[in-house]
Amino acid sequence: MNVTQGTKLTEDDKSLFKGKNFAFIATLMKDGSPQITPTWVDVEGDSILINTAEGRVKEKNVKRDKRVAVSIVDSANPYNMVTVRGKVTEQVTKGADAHIDKMSKKYLGMDKYPYRTPTEKRVILKIHADKVFHMTP
Amino acid sequence: MNVTQGTKLTEDDKSLFKGKNFAFIATLMKDGSPQITPTWVDVEGDSILINTAEGRVKEKNVKRDKRVAVSIVDSANPYNMVTVRGKVTEQVTKGADAHIDKMSKKYLGMDKYPYRTPTEKRVILKIHADKVFHMTP
Repeated sequence: MNVTQGTKLTEDDKSLFKGKNFAFIATLMKDGSPQITPTWVDVEGDSILINTAEGRVKEKNVKRDKRVAVSIVDSANPYNMVTVRGKVTEQVTKGADAHIDKMSKKYLGMDKYPYRTPTEKRVILKIHADKVFHMTP
Repeated sequence: MNVTQGTKLTEDDKSLFKGKNFAFIATLMKDGSPQITPTWVDVEGDSILINTAEGRVKEKNVKRDKRVAVSIVDSANPYNMVTVRGKVTEQVTKGADAHIDKMSKKYLGMDKYPYRTPTEKRVILKIHADKVFHMTP
């Protein structure tokens, strides 16, 4: 295994986030303990984007403490993996509905996100990477 | 998606950890920020076992703060996933060499772990689950 380290996402790293791969985001609970959620993921410029809904555990957690870690594994080769430590720099509701449909298209092949509930407010977490580790076989 | 919650691992949860699936473990850095590592994983009784080496980031982190989160996804169906919050209750060096060979057999089909370095000291982290979430499609 090779590990390369950096302080920003390379094009190689980004291709993993662009691919149809699941990411895992770790956030901090109120008592400071870690929590993980598997999630769909996107990348835009140098930011990792995660679409969630207001009131979800990870959304409440990052409102309190914006420090997160994100890890992603190539579904075609689990020994190709990127893991990031960083911060949520923005929480954006504008465009979040269109964005969850984009994620639905990417992961489910469906134009409209099918799990939408009438009351939920979607929100995009924009994550800035401070430390990036890319492991390759 | 269905979510079932509990305070201990069910047989269903354990089968995901027994399978040839990657787990993701979140630990806490010295400054309290979260860190994630993708890892091989095993289960024994009600404990999740992760085999690491002394001096690795996650091993140093759990020595300082034993709170962790672990998430695992069924490689055959990514919408079948278990995520756990818990604690490292023991760090065991006895049997850790034989155990990494067992993991090598499970994940690589090789009797002997091929990445062993002469100086590393293997250690098994035994993790007790406090909260368990099992999501199914």
